[in-house]
Amino acid sequence: MNIAILGYGNLARGVESAVRQNDDIELKYVFTRRDPSGIKLLTEGVPVIGADDILRYRDDIDVLVLCGGSATDLPHMTPEYAKDFNVIDSFDTHAKIPEHFAKVDSAARGSGHTALISCGWDPGMFSVMRLLGNAILPEGSDYTFWGKGVSQGHSDAVRRIDKVKDAKQYTIPVDDALKRVRAGENPTLTTRQKHTRECFVVAEEGADTAAIEKAVKTMPNYFDEYDTTVHFITQEEFDRDHSEIPHGGFVFRSGVTGFSKEHSHVIEYSLKLDSNPEFTASVLLAYARAVYTLNLQGEIGCKTVFDIAPKYLIPMPDDEIRAHLL
Amino acid sequence: MNIAILGYGNLARGVESAVRQNDDIELKYVFTRRDPSGIKLLTEGVPVIGADDILRYRDDIDVLVLCGGSATDLPHMTPEYAKDFNVIDSFDTHAKIPEHFAKVDSAARGSGHTALISCGWDPGMFSVMRLLGNAILPEGSDYTFWGKGVSQGHSDAVRRIDKVKDAKQYTIPVDDALKRVRAGENPTLTTRQKHTRECFVVAEEGADTAAIEKAVKTMPNYFDEYDTTVHFITQEEFDRDHSEIPHGGFVFRSGVTGFSKEHSHVIEYSLKLDSNPEFTASVLLAYARAVYTLNLQGEIGCKTVFDIAPKYLIPMPDDEIRAHLL
Repeated sequence: MNIAILGYGNLARGVESAVRQNDDIELKYVFTRRDPSGIKLLTEGVPVIGADDILRYRDDIDVLVLCGGSATDLPHMTPEYAKDFNVIDSFDTHAKIPEHFAKVDSAARGSGHTALISCGWDPGMFSVMRLLGNAILPEGSDYTFWGKGVSQGHSDAVRRIDKVKDAKQYTIPVDDALKRVRAGENPTLTTRQKHTRECFVVAEEGADTAAIEKAVKTMPNYFDEYDTTVHFITQEEFDRDHSEIPHGGFVFRSGVTGFSKEHSHVIEYSLKLDSNPEFTASVLLAYARAVYTLNLQGEIGCKTVFDIAPKYLIPMPDDEIRAHLL
Repeated sequence: MNIAILGYGNLARGVESAVRQNDDIELKYVFTRRDPSGIKLLTEGVPVIGADDILRYRDDIDVLVLCGGSATDLPHMTPEYAKDFNVIDSFDTHAKIPEHFAKVDSAARGSGHTALISCGWDPGMFSVMRLLGNAILPEGSDYTFWGKGVSQGHSDAVRRIDKVKDAKQYTIPVDDALKRVRAGENPTLTTRQKHTRECFVVAEEGADTAAIEKAVKTMPNYFDEYDTTVHFITQEEFDRDHSEIPHGGFVFRSGVTGFSKEHSHVIEYSLKLDSNPEFTASVLLAYARAVYTLNLQGEIGCKTVFDIAPKYLIPMPDDEIRAHLL
């Protein structure tokens, strides 16, 4: 199976790296909207090509992995490329998924292609876990916690504050909340009770750090509803201790069964990830495999993780899966 | 969707109870190979009928839930009933799954029915987690731990010892092993390092408890490879403290990504169940829904959890699933 990547940021490099761990998948091309000569891949022999020329390579590409951003790239990119390719994306603006789905579905159906949107870990694996939990325990509560990990959006928000040179924000689930959910208490939790936020900030020389700290802690939508800690550190400390992009989180389904609802059950799924983009890329690649197989079977249109049977994710014959993994 | 249950043990009562939590599913009949007059259901208006008469009710039953045991009932029961019904079972003899699959597949295909075998939590949800983990992190290690929970097979083995009136055996994962796996250490663990076994035994009056304890701890296959604790208690204590059937466990996938395999990831799925049979029954019912839908779509033959896309497990239209669970 031949894939190509569109874009060359953190997620794309994660896909490039994951391909090496999957013998059945070959990376044929990387396409970019920037100047191709400015991009140096880590894989020998894979050409970097301007996105304008992509249609000339159409017949060589089984699945095109779209590595653009959810805010401005993917909303038009995925429907556009679904006209000529089987595509997969990691669109993660939850509220706009129905709209995105409709556009991609129409484009893919019109051209006989298969698309899969909103893949990764949330949306993605966490979504599968929410569905499984709700299907198995119809009477219960859902809990999703994120972290400990870097929130790109919150880090960007801190960086936009005056006199801030660099910043990284970690979202941290509150341990006591996790414990109560894990114990089957079914607690009602406020935003503040679920997560705390921790910021590491490099301020410009002579900056009023008290003013920066106040600006962070009171920032509407981003920080005002949370308990936030702000640490000022040097650029050296920042580069040394905060260059990675870890993340993770927890999905719980807590519910009851029995004639008198006398039995409680807790289902917990958790991820602890050293690299958010590399893990997301690894999920994308497993689902790209499913996109390809479904297209060969004539299953066209837009799909999500909910439409994909597990067997399509792994390059192993059905009888071996049953013998070794069931 | 109309279901019927064959058998009326703990698992069947779990199905009977779970039906009340699923508005789209109705329990039409319970079939038994015992004398139907000796069985009193907890649901009003559902007839209990001798298994010999089951074919007369064929047209009223969308899925027949087979609640027999894996050792002697299901190996012949599932292929037999797959000739006349869509069926689902919880066959859990891992080594014999390929053989069981082949027989059920042949019977179901021959008659245009859909069957799903080996459903529950292990095999079942744990199998799905093993597959997802392997698909996403192809370079890594799998770990499955069971417990804390009651092992029926080990409890039976202790009860067979001379002068033992009653016994219950709990399988307990070793906390230190869990911690090492959770920390991404990828440890190599012996049987003894993964689980301990704890037995609560009611001995007959005047029995040599030291002899019983030795018989338990040295029992080949069941206990000799484990650190086992034996507690002698009274029948009253036994009835008061050990009448429930809790269980659970953990599935881990621990793996690496990155050009230099420099990033570690840990995926953990865990279950904490007050009632093993009721949770298993709840999983069966969600998958029974998929069996029915697939059969309506003409997807016949034997399936496992690997063949089932998540959307088939929940009674919610696709657009609502995408809007609310993705």
